[in-house]
Formats: sequence, C-alpha cells, structure tokens
Amino acid sequence: MSGRSEFDAWFRLLETPRLGLIQARQLLAAFGSAQAVLRAPPSALNSFVPAALASAIAGPPPEAFSERLLRCHRWLDGGPLRRYVTVGDADYPPPLLQTADPPLLLFVEGAVESLSMRSLAIVGARNPTAQGLENARAFAAALGRAGLGIVSGLARGIDTAAHEGALLGQAPTLAVLGAGPDEPYPPQNAALAARIVAGGGAVISEYAPGTPPLKENFPRRNRIIAGLSLGTLVVEAALRSGSLITARLASEAGREVFAIPGSIHSPQSKGCHALIKQGAKLVEAAADILEELALLSPRAASPLQDAGLDAGFEAEDEPGDAEDPILRALGHDPTTMDALQARTGWPTADLAAGLLELELQEKVQRLPGGLYQRRAVA
Amino acid sequence: MSGRSEFDAWFRLLETPRLGLIQARQLLAAFGSAQAVLRAPPSALNSFVPAALASAIAGPPPEAFSERLLRCHRWLDGGPLRRYVTVGDADYPPPLLQTADPPLLLFVEGAVESLSMRSLAIVGARNPTAQGLENARAFAAALGRAGLGIVSGLARGIDTAAHEGALLGQAPTLAVLGAGPDEPYPPQNAALAARIVAGGGAVISEYAPGTPPLKENFPRRNRIIAGLSLGTLVVEAALRSGSLITARLASEAGREVFAIPGSIHSPQSKGCHALIKQGAKLVEAAADILEELALLSPRAASPLQDAGLDAGFEAEDEPGDAEDPILRALGHDPTTMDALQARTGWPTADLAAGLLELELQEKVQRLPGGLYQRRAVA
Repeated sequence: MSGRSEFDAWFRLLETPRLGLIQARQLLAAFGSAQAVLRAPPSALNSFVPAALASAIAGPPPEAFSERLLRCHRWLDGGPLRRYVTVGDADYPPPLLQTADPPLLLFVEGAVESLSMRSLAIVGARNPTAQGLENARAFAAALGRAGLGIVSGLARGIDTAAHEGALLGQAPTLAVLGAGPDEPYPPQNAALAARIVAGGGAVISEYAPGTPPLKENFPRRNRIIAGLSLGTLVVEAALRSGSLITARLASEAGREVFAIPGSIHSPQSKGCHALIKQGAKLVEAAADILEELALLSPRAASPLQDAGLDAGFEAEDEPGDAEDPILRALGHDPTTMDALQARTGWPTADLAAGLLELELQEKVQRLPGGLYQRRAVA
Repeated sequence: MSGRSEFDAWFRLLETPRLGLIQARQLLAAFGSAQAVLRAPPSALNSFVPAALASAIAGPPPEAFSERLLRCHRWLDGGPLRRYVTVGDADYPPPLLQTADPPLLLFVEGAVESLSMRSLAIVGARNPTAQGLENARAFAAALGRAGLGIVSGLARGIDTAAHEGALLGQAPTLAVLGAGPDEPYPPQNAALAARIVAGGGAVISEYAPGTPPLKENFPRRNRIIAGLSLGTLVVEAALRSGSLITARLASEAGREVFAIPGSIHSPQSKGCHALIKQGAKLVEAAADILEELALLSPRAASPLQDAGLDAGFEAEDEPGDAEDPILRALGHDPTTMDALQARTGWPTADLAAGLLELELQEKVQRLPGGLYQRRAVA
C-alpha cells in the first residue's frame, strides 16, 4: 500500500462493477498504478477492457461512493495495526495470489506478515459436539506449536475453538471475515478478534468497512480461508455445510484436505466422512497433517504391510490377551455406575473398589454427574 | 467328495509334510484321484514332485495317522450335514480357489452351497465397544437382507455380533474356525455354531477334527475368511490386531477392504483408521458396501461437487439455522442431567420440561442410570 490517494484509487477500481482480477492486473501493469488507471482516458483503457467497462472506470463513481470511501478512511485511521494490501503489493500472501480468484484488496488488522506464513485452515460446524470443540482446540494448539499459522472464519463452534487453540499454542491465527473488518461475526466474537490481533495474527476481509455479514458473502469468504492455507482441516461438519465448500475450494486450489473421522451415528461427522470418501486424508493427530505436508518425517509402519503373519504378533489379539474388565466396560465415553453394572454384572461395592484403584492408577477419571471416563494416555 | 476311501487318501496327502497346493494339483491331474496318487510308485510321483516328497507320499503314514483318521471318520459320521470338500470338487467355493493359498480340503458342517454364495467378511476386535457390537450386528443384518452371506471367525466380540446379525437378517453365515470343526472357539460359542448350521450357513475349517485352537492357526484361518468373500469389513480393530491381517489378506487377494470410522480417541477405531489411510473404503452404512460391490446403484451427489456456491444452500449453515438447544447439548452420547445443565446453563425445571417434550416427540430417549440420549432417526 502506498498512501491514501492510492487507496482511494484502488477502492474506486473495486467499486467499478464487473472489473475482474485479470483486467485489473492488465490495467495496473499498463498504467503503473491505480491512480494512473483512473487518470487515463476511456480510449486508452479501451485497449485493455471493453468500452462499457472503460467508461465506467473513467466516469463518475457509483452512488454513495464517497460515503463508503469515508468509512474506509475512518476504519484505516482507527488503529495502528490497520492497513490494506492489494494484489500489487509485495505483502500480498503468495498462496492466495496463486488461487483462481484472489481478492484484489484485503483489509487487514494485525500482523500483515502472518498472512504469508505457512498456515493450515481449520474449519467446521457451528454446532459441533463437545468432543469436536476439544479436537479443534487440540489440533490448532499442536499445529500452532509446530510452527503453522491457523486460518479460520471466526464463526461459532469449530472456528472459534480453532482460533482459541492457536492462541493457546502461541501461534498467529488469521480470522477471515464474511463482512467488513469492523463487523466481526458473530458479534460476541469481537473480543476473540481483538485477542487474535493482540496475539500476532490478523483479522482480514475483502469487504469494505460497514459491509454487513450477508449470507452470500460467506461462501466467497471461504475461498480466502482455503487460499491462504497449505491445506484445510475439517474437524466436524454436517453434510451440505459451508465447511465442505471450503474443502472443495481447497481441493480446487490444489491444497490438501484433511478430515477427522467420528461416529457413523453423529451427523457432525457425516461431512468429514463424505470428504474422506472423496479422497480427503483421514487424520487422527496433528502429526498426520505435519507428515502429509512434509513438515515431519513419516512414521514407519503401514498397518497392511506391518500386520505380519507371525504368531508372536498374533498373540496380542487371539486367545490370551487381557484388559481390566472395568476399563473394557467403560469404553471411551463418560459412563454411569448403572451402565457399568449392566455391562459387568458386578456388585456396586466391587465396581467402586475397582474404580478407585483405577483412579489411583490415573487410568480413570471421575466426572461431574456421577460419570466415569477412561483417561486418555498422553 | 466321493466316499470314505477317497477321503482317507486325501487325508493321507494332507498329512504329508511339505506337499503344497500346486504339487497336489499336478499329482491329482496326472493320476486322476487321491487314491490313485497314493497307489502310484515313487518313481512315477517323482516326475511331478521331488524324490523326498515322492517317497513320503508312497511310504508309511506319519505317526498316529490312523488315530487322527479315525477321529475324522467319527466326526464325518456324527451328523447329517457334515462333509468335506476338496480343491478337486465342484462344490469348492470359487472365490477361495482363486486365492494364492487355498486350503486343499475343508471340513464343512452345514449347507455346502453357502460357501459359494456372494459373501462379505465382517471381522473385528474381540473386545469391542458396545456401539461396535451394535454396528456389527446392524451391518450384518442389513447386508444379509440384501442377499449377501456373512463370513466371520466365531470369535468373541465383533465376529459373534456379525454372525448374530446375519442370523437376524435371515442370511446364511459362515464361521471359519482356527481349530478342528469339532472345536468351536471360544467354547461358549458352540451354541452359536449350532445356530449357524441350523440357519442355512456352515461352520468350516481346514483343520482336522481334534485340532485344538492353536494361536498360530488363527492368522492362517484369516486367509479363508478373506478368500471366501467379495470384501472384508473391519468394524472395530486395534492397531496390530488379527483383523488387520484379514484385511491385508483380502487386499492381497484383490478383494475390497471396508472399515467403519470412529472416535479418534477410541483404540478400537485406530485399526480401522489405519486401514482407511491405507486405502480401505470408509463406510457409514451397508449401502456404501453394496454400492462399492456394484450390488446397488450409486447415490448421486458427491459432497465436493455438490457443495454449490449458491446462497440458498448456504442458508443451512450460515447465520440463521436453528436446532433445539437441548438436542445440541445432548450430542450423540448418553448424557446426564448434570452435564446438560453445565452445557446449557438452564435451570433443572426448564430442562426437564424440554426433555419431556422431546421424549414425546420421540427425539430423545430416557436411558437407565438417569441418562438421556438423542434417538437416531431410522
């Protein structure tokens, strides 16, 4: 970016209906700057764009343009970390530039260099399960600690958890809005947006200050999320949800698509399962993603190759293995004493004694509501 | 099969150490029958097999052979549905014959024609989760109703549930043993074995009557399970488990491998996830398998293709959708009132009223132990 009058010229170009990226680039290359484009006579512009578009650029600005421009100025002047980046700037994130439809200009609040770091998008349902939220947080934190930026959409649910996890992992995180940069959506995430900026990340939007969160903006917003990132991780998603759009756009941009599996009975996993069926990589841990992005050396064994026919190996699964019967009855969900009794057929006293021992061994955790849960081994 | 003396000759061949399938076939083709092979002089046999093997065939039987043979006779005479099938018989199941290492002879109790029907193997952990058991039963019943036979290993856990589901779906089910046909393993599944035979299926083994359930037999047994089947479905499996051997053998035999995903925090799903990473097909429903086996026409939409950028579609996921907050708080696991309170922040009275309404709408089910669970829509 280079000063207010160049911004004004850019904004005037942006506000010209039907001016696409390729044409804008041709004009900028030919005339040297947005201001020079606007100063050029329609006849000169007409060498690069159709006559109607040339007159629209050279003619009077659209209705209420000056008000919208003023709002941009106010926003840009409203904080030290606010700026704009255009496709002509060195600061424009290269991964986004390589996509089919990069925005001409981005409003940015935060660390502009975080836009160009190696990042992963983490997206998903706005109404996830509790475990989905924890997964989003844990993956974002682990990937953040591994040096990736985390891109998401500031939405409720998985997006929020992804940003929070990144902050937890002390990684820059980018929130891409489907509204103006002064209109974080949902409004209750304004504080999270501020923490994202304070944490060395950025809140970005291609929409001008004052643009409300219109439904139709969100799918287009998703192309920026996908485009900024080496890959997109879908944590939980219903069928026919916005997260699948982001995944499709990532795939179309030649980026990796990752998905976390879950119960076949959970609607929030159906989108992820559909993606895996379509070729998305199933991931169980952050390491799976780092390996796939070649940021980590692959772990050895392939299970199909590794499942040797030797009897020693088989000993683990055929007659002879043993697991604590209480742990087996617990499974991996929070479980009541009643359910444990039904599953084991044991008297309460025996179960209580066994559970206490398992608690002391830190293998079982007592949860609120009389629930017991197996503790994950870190 | 053709009479007792031919069986005796086959059994004698089987008991000859180091006689492989290809050699046995060559001998049978050259001499016309197992009895003729045994009658041939070593010099004649030596045209087809090495001299040591020729002498072993023509020489005295191994130690205690006649006792083992007697035990075979007793077993074969012990029930009307007992017989044996050799690689030379028209009844030998073609899919198994096409594998790299088909057993020369199978002991069969039940409907021998069920061995040759289009079948799917369903295998998995011996210590599955409760949901895993239900999934095994439901998939087996649905696939059975769709006309597939269900092959499994009679083991505890998923195998047992697969056989039971097939019986529920009134489909023939095949139990392949890793011991003699008179030694169902585990012993408590003897009744299930009898129901399998009564249900039009079969219990089969390549091991002679009296062979105990030796650990080392089970991985080899798995090749029969895989070989009899168009594909193998792994319902739940730990890493490094016998089910992954069956999956590998199915894959090596050019058969499909299917796996059901689950929580990334459940060890019983890790084997399935590893298989999916390796290229196994993720399945959520029996229809996925029927489609893949081209027994059902594919459903239309691909999610990546289908996730249109139209605003109307997006309306489902972006600002505006609504789900009952109690259902959202319930997720898809059994949940206590305390957990619901923690998740919703609602007073007990409001929650109780809401839950009652959802119960009346058949959207929520009250479970033993004060748990509430969302009801799956059939």
